[in-house]
Amino acid sequence: MTRRAKNILFIMCDQLRWDYLSCYGHPRLVTPNIDGLAAKGVRFTRAYVQSPVCGASRMSFYTGRYVSSHGASWNGVPLKVGEMTLGDYLRPLGVRTALVGKTHMRADRDGLERLGIDPNSIIGVRVAECGFDPYERDDGLHGLGPEGRYDPLVPRYNRWLNDKGYAGDNPWHDWANAADGDGNRLASGWAMRHARKPARVKEEDSETPYMTGRAMEFMAETGDAPWCLHLSYIKPHWPYIAPAPYNSVFGPADVLPAVRSEAERADPHPIYREFMGLRVSGAFARDEVREAVIPVYMGLIKQIDDQLGRLFRFMEEQGLFDNTLIVFTSDHGDYLGDHWLGEKDLFHEPSVKVPLIVYDPSRRADAARGTACDALVETIDLIPTFLEAVGADPAEQSHRLEGRSLVPLLDGAAPPSWRRFAISEYDYALLPVAAKLGIEPRDARLFMVADQRWKYIHAPPFRPMLYDLATDPSELRDLGADPACEGERARLAAGLNLWGLRQSQRTTLSEQQMRDRRGKSQRCGILIGVWDESDVPDELWSRYLGEDDGRAQ
Amino acid sequence: MTRRAKNILFIMCDQLRWDYLSCYGHPRLVTPNIDGLAAKGVRFTRAYVQSPVCGASRMSFYTGRYVSSHGASWNGVPLKVGEMTLGDYLRPLGVRTALVGKTHMRADRDGLERLGIDPNSIIGVRVAECGFDPYERDDGLHGLGPEGRYDPLVPRYNRWLNDKGYAGDNPWHDWANAADGDGNRLASGWAMRHARKPARVKEEDSETPYMTGRAMEFMAETGDAPWCLHLSYIKPHWPYIAPAPYNSVFGPADVLPAVRSEAERADPHPIYREFMGLRVSGAFARDEVREAVIPVYMGLIKQIDDQLGRLFRFMEEQGLFDNTLIVFTSDHGDYLGDHWLGEKDLFHEPSVKVPLIVYDPSRRADAARGTACDALVETIDLIPTFLEAVGADPAEQSHRLEGRSLVPLLDGAAPPSWRRFAISEYDYALLPVAAKLGIEPRDARLFMVADQRWKYIHAPPFRPMLYDLATDPSELRDLGADPACEGERARLAAGLNLWGLRQSQRTTLSEQQMRDRRGKSQRCGILIGVWDESDVPDELWSRYLGEDDGRAQ
Repeated sequence: MTRRAKNILFIMCDQLRWDYLSCYGHPRLVTPNIDGLAAKGVRFTRAYVQSPVCGASRMSFYTGRYVSSHGASWNGVPLKVGEMTLGDYLRPLGVRTALVGKTHMRADRDGLERLGIDPNSIIGVRVAECGFDPYERDDGLHGLGPEGRYDPLVPRYNRWLNDKGYAGDNPWHDWANAADGDGNRLASGWAMRHARKPARVKEEDSETPYMTGRAMEFMAETGDAPWCLHLSYIKPHWPYIAPAPYNSVFGPADVLPAVRSEAERADPHPIYREFMGLRVSGAFARDEVREAVIPVYMGLIKQIDDQLGRLFRFMEEQGLFDNTLIVFTSDHGDYLGDHWLGEKDLFHEPSVKVPLIVYDPSRRADAARGTACDALVETIDLIPTFLEAVGADPAEQSHRLEGRSLVPLLDGAAPPSWRRFAISEYDYALLPVAAKLGIEPRDARLFMVADQRWKYIHAPPFRPMLYDLATDPSELRDLGADPACEGERARLAAGLNLWGLRQSQRTTLSEQQMRDRRGKSQRCGILIGVWDESDVPDELWSRYLGEDDGRAQ
Repeated sequence: MTRRAKNILFIMCDQLRWDYLSCYGHPRLVTPNIDGLAAKGVRFTRAYVQSPVCGASRMSFYTGRYVSSHGASWNGVPLKVGEMTLGDYLRPLGVRTALVGKTHMRADRDGLERLGIDPNSIIGVRVAECGFDPYERDDGLHGLGPEGRYDPLVPRYNRWLNDKGYAGDNPWHDWANAADGDGNRLASGWAMRHARKPARVKEEDSETPYMTGRAMEFMAETGDAPWCLHLSYIKPHWPYIAPAPYNSVFGPADVLPAVRSEAERADPHPIYREFMGLRVSGAFARDEVREAVIPVYMGLIKQIDDQLGRLFRFMEEQGLFDNTLIVFTSDHGDYLGDHWLGEKDLFHEPSVKVPLIVYDPSRRADAARGTACDALVETIDLIPTFLEAVGADPAEQSHRLEGRSLVPLLDGAAPPSWRRFAISEYDYALLPVAAKLGIEPRDARLFMVADQRWKYIHAPPFRPMLYDLATDPSELRDLGADPACEGERARLAAGLNLWGLRQSQRTTLSEQQMRDRRGKSQRCGILIGVWDESDVPDELWSRYLGEDDGRAQ
């Protein structure tokens, strides 16, 4: 295969809704730098994450496999030792694969210990860091509570803030994630009532510019060797708090109406009902909360866009735009009160669909620049795309990688066939929802099957949900129990069942190795069902069975 | 849980049909020692292997997981590094877990290298040996052909034969697997026409007595420490050749008629047709072959029974019968010409069903001694059984182990619920059958779903097969296309689909760990959907958010 790019810049935002960018149609939030990337690349309009929650979604991005294939199905579920990640695929091709920002990876410490892998060895660090060389690992949530720190890693960012004069044990918390409160108090970003207050940190010292700077340092340091940098912003993920001026760029007048209807609350699906009952959903059902939070959410996105402008200018100066494949995406969305929900977790478009823009520097991609593509795309398609971009054949890894290269779509070509269904999964075992519904951890699972028109959600032991995106693009009518839709439900369930039986764990031999090994045992002297020498070719017989060379012994 | 046994003796034969033992009803083949074990234990009459082929079946025995969960789906497909095996479960409980004989394990060399695990370290050896300490590893097939040795490991047995005066580079081949031919030639056991000739090795030096002796040496050497020994006989697997007198204990008059009908050949399922067309099936369709081979197959079983008599006497002398759980089983069966087939691979009872006898020394098992149990049993049930026998709680491993402990059945108790379906799988990607049918390696898969009455075989892209064991216990009528059976097919397919979506890869956290972690992020300071302090308990708020202790900085 031909190399199309030397480097890969894989930009991810956290909790960025697909439709909160002007190139995706937001009427108030103008994002010229991201739009500019879309004008140079292809903008995918039907890109689904493999799970609408940080950790599981990311493990699918980084392994190229469905959640039920890699097993790290929620935040904090360790990715088992042995699962191959982006770095394992790119490093043998000579591509330095590094991280700046968040992965939400939890290392499989038990597995490392069982296999005797020193967590401080190079291999151990990579296994524990999801295959990346951790140029800067920072998951961006440095909370502390009665059971200790949420993230045991003290981020370099904290030390950097201290060096800049921001005092305290946890300057992330006290400066980046807090505003000035009344009197001598902090107004913590954990309380959304403070959202519109400016964070205490200076804008240029806040997380998004810091991570952008670190990415530029990485590029400058790495020099001529090919690299893949995962620039993984922590924002616009909560805590919803922004430094000035981004706390006040937008106001309540910029907040779009919530997409929801009273009918949704009338007789909801049991799972949906439980999620509507969560604290965060109750909060976002209130206008007061939406009007405080959404302008700041928009401000954090605006800040990312500005920082990408800075980064892209730097890359242009360095000549990197000519040889770097650039991806811009998110790990999932944010309901922001749509459908009476907060956070993500379920499968409405604001949660499960993400922006995905891919800029390919090669001449062959010229035809499709600035176009939108409505093919059903899954985030597991990125690793195959990266492999093809740097000149490797992703088909050689198809026994592990479950996605498809987007390269044909980047060229504007219609591939001979494309997936008919996109799949997403959700494991709610770690949420109190499971206990309230009386569901065992192993059974607390949801599956989405979406095609070009329909979205089906398998939710045993409860009935399925179903939405018709053609007649109900806002997904306000659940047709999961509508007798008229029985045929569609059966068709989509059949797609899910086919997927459920896929070959996902035979990862130690490639398809080609399987083909090449056919008949090998006979060529190694294993003769099955042979009566006499007439049953096998002479070259398998005479030299190896001792019939001809006598019993010298 | 209470400890029921100190040691575990896990005896496996290779390719032993379920019905070739007198305790399972064979009218000519009298196996008093195995029958004696059945009289002291429970004999399972519906025990199915997870795949009717050596390697895949064994990897399920040794991992306690379905084939599509562990991925080592055929002979020679490496078991990926990280899959836990019997030894990983038993060793932390203080049980030395060792192997004498065959595993058919292929090490994941690429995975070992990628993770930097030295294959010669203790951990590396165990990973490469399926978790066992290899007291004696010998897969029993030491063929040599134009592409080299089938098994790179030169067995200790070969050196031992050399020391005993059996000459040559490969005495396994020249003495244990050959008879005297015409003139100065060997009559190789690879040619079934030689089956009834006595092997050149003396009986006491043949493989089965050798392995039995090694097991006794292991027990004697190990002394008082608890152990689990996998005594894994290579026989009665082909090459079908036995030392005197076992080559002639049985004759053509002892051969039962083949179970087959002309109707089976009239319009068979496409997969079945291809397997009927294999050389081995053609051979076993001939009476000449069956009359030569089956008496020797029976003789090899008789030899195993005699050797088990020797072993059991030794164990009684050592007092081991009072504190050792003993399992006797096989990795799959052998068609021997039934259904116009040779070998195994498909899902008729002679292939997929195995003998399974479990003797539990504890007093609580007294009530069920000598009984038969017709519960649907899968071979992945053994590891949970072993764990419970030595006093551990298998439920703690239920995030990895997919089977169920047989202990309630050993006590003669009816468990509150039991599985309604048994599943078996088969990957034919490595067989030329796949190429002939035009099936890609990833798609070359069959699934069996059996309940107490029916057996359904899912075989996409072809129609399913279906057998009614109640009205057709010999499985001569394939009802896979019978319109009258549509309801049964749909019901069994639904069982398969449910199984296909099971949670099988979330192996890094137990069910209890999942329950315990609910709400933990909030207790570590991650506050989601909080507007103000009224939304969370004070102990999560005041001490951690800095609101009360002022901005000292």
